[in-house]
Amino acid sequence: MSAWVLPDHIADVLPSEARHIEELRRGLLDTARCYGYELVMPPLMEHLESLLTGTGEALDLQTFKLVDQLSGRSLGLRADTTPQVARIDAHLLNRKGVTRLCYCGPVLHTRPDRPHATREPLQFGAEIYGHSGLEADLEALQLARECLRVAGVRDTTIDLADMRIVRKLLAGVALSPQRLSRIHAALAAKDAGELAALTHCFAADSRAALLALLQLYGDEAVLAEAEKALQRIDGISPVLANLRWLASRLEGAQVTFDLADLRGYAYYSGARFAIYARGASDALVRGGRYDEVGAVFGRNRPAVGLSLDIKQVVGVVPPQTLKAAIRAPWGEAADVNAAIAELRAAGETVVCVLPGHESEVDEFHCDRELAQVSGRWVVQAV
Amino acid sequence: MSAWVLPDHIADVLPSEARHIEELRRGLLDTARCYGYELVMPPLMEHLESLLTGTGEALDLQTFKLVDQLSGRSLGLRADTTPQVARIDAHLLNRKGVTRLCYCGPVLHTRPDRPHATREPLQFGAEIYGHSGLEADLEALQLARECLRVAGVRDTTIDLADMRIVRKLLAGVALSPQRLSRIHAALAAKDAGELAALTHCFAADSRAALLALLQLYGDEAVLAEAEKALQRIDGISPVLANLRWLASRLEGAQVTFDLADLRGYAYYSGARFAIYARGASDALVRGGRYDEVGAVFGRNRPAVGLSLDIKQVVGVVPPQTLKAAIRAPWGEAADVNAAIAELRAAGETVVCVLPGHESEVDEFHCDRELAQVSGRWVVQAV
Repeated sequence: MSAWVLPDHIADVLPSEARHIEELRRGLLDTARCYGYELVMPPLMEHLESLLTGTGEALDLQTFKLVDQLSGRSLGLRADTTPQVARIDAHLLNRKGVTRLCYCGPVLHTRPDRPHATREPLQFGAEIYGHSGLEADLEALQLARECLRVAGVRDTTIDLADMRIVRKLLAGVALSPQRLSRIHAALAAKDAGELAALTHCFAADSRAALLALLQLYGDEAVLAEAEKALQRIDGISPVLANLRWLASRLEGAQVTFDLADLRGYAYYSGARFAIYARGASDALVRGGRYDEVGAVFGRNRPAVGLSLDIKQVVGVVPPQTLKAAIRAPWGEAADVNAAIAELRAAGETVVCVLPGHESEVDEFHCDRELAQVSGRWVVQAV
Repeated sequence: MSAWVLPDHIADVLPSEARHIEELRRGLLDTARCYGYELVMPPLMEHLESLLTGTGEALDLQTFKLVDQLSGRSLGLRADTTPQVARIDAHLLNRKGVTRLCYCGPVLHTRPDRPHATREPLQFGAEIYGHSGLEADLEALQLARECLRVAGVRDTTIDLADMRIVRKLLAGVALSPQRLSRIHAALAAKDAGELAALTHCFAADSRAALLALLQLYGDEAVLAEAEKALQRIDGISPVLANLRWLASRLEGAQVTFDLADLRGYAYYSGARFAIYARGASDALVRGGRYDEVGAVFGRNRPAVGLSLDIKQVVGVVPPQTLKAAIRAPWGEAADVNAAIAELRAAGETVVCVLPGHESEVDEFHCDRELAQVSGRWVVQAV
């Protein structure tokens, strides 16, 4: 096999896309900074048991494993940065008050998440720790919308749900983890037959409510329908009120609900959101509340956050136009080098044409050149 | 063992250092862009035989290995990005003319390079392909100096050498790879006894020249000494002339030479440089010519480049001061939210104080606050 063949779902990023990714990366980190989120950089690898502990357990199959020659212990390559950032909040920073953190870096997956997904997403995310109120949920949602706006994504739909609804419907029912997992799968697939079979021994109210959930998706009318369909289940009303409160504060957004959607259920403990865009087969941003995430690191704090894959987002927005550059001769004279240095200091791209390569066409779109006119170096159109 | 203990030589990067790293990252990529270098992003993992082919062979012990579940094949985590970028130039871009590429991303090492080095450096580098003249060597050197200037590194020394000198001294001597490797090690360690023992069967001229190399370090006078000491060896004079040409064009730089230094000898094929700074135990930037690097990817082009570890550079310059931020109340009123949005759009960091957390001290240095004065929202000093 040739030395230049890459593994499946692993790819080089070439100049025009790389520039786009880098610009979006900066735009997202600047946006998070403007909201008061501090940047952290957790490592690419950790001891396997740290990565897969607590809420990280669900990442086991997605996580590449290797052996540390220094210690003989098993290491994992992170498949998700969120548990690492929770560890930093809980153990390293250990602040009393609200802490806002953001991050951006590659994660690695043993298998692609979706049919054409990369196994090396560039994950960007932001997290708020220490506030249990809905205001933090709202801030995460607003930041997620702002991130997509910065990326140039149009025509988005925000889908809301709350993981507590299914939990409350299943409260008091003794279930094996296998059975629970099959119920979650049937809900996610909206498979009424399977769900009916799995719940045949449940109390009638719970069973009816679970089956009703399968129909509870669509616009805000879903919340009123849910009030009726789930009225016999304790504690559902405040959860629906939370969703209504959040939806009412998302000005100008198209909001939908899908109360049976349980993606990432191992993670979230409250409201969760997913933002879809026309032309994207999967959600571009996912987020929500996951209050238990820091527990295994010795500190259980309220937590809300969001994350996205920059490579996925770049794939659904039009490519950016190349920034124009200036061709300049290679020279030893102080005056031409001073002119070049001045242009570069002003942020211009100046490509020096190395001797013997004068007739080559550069990949940079050079729309101007540095030329000597009446003894002075000036920039002129090509 | 606790879930928050990281492997040796692996660390989290916390906010103040992370911000510094991110700013330097941008500064370096912008500098390279101003010189006409296009950004590429090779993957973190590749088939092991791609990573360790050709000039990559020397990276074997430094490279983490794992198994691809999709193919059953061995993968490696990159320990150096340079061979990957050569692959991109040779195979993917395949341009006729001069190609300038840059990159920035993590690499992983099975063992630390130096006693206190991280096993996860953040490697930045830039490469010029397609020009065999010294002008490309000079451009790489100038870009390396500019990168350290951008990083705020002062008091630097540029050390020059050329890998061809030792090669020419050993030309025609039949040597096993083991013996060659021991000679290289003795030269690097300036171990005259070992070198004398290893070369006792050499021709007198070669042996005398190799032993003379051990003394050939210091300022520009070294070049004149080398002319004398190595005059019986074919082809040395033009190499020394190259070094003199390069040194003469490094205005304002302190330049030294160390003709026996062979670090990274598997890589380089011509002039090589290393830039040291006061307070740093190892070179901050290394670079040079390595014309053979693309051969295994089907295209042998002239190549010159440089690379550095951003984490190492950040460790030797003073930390940057925190950018000041604005505290703002959390509110539902349109006017306060409009005021916050406007400040953020102008690049300001505005931290909304979530309800109930008014008395907390935020880690961001908030030197101003958004307050209502006579019915209008204004920014005032805290």
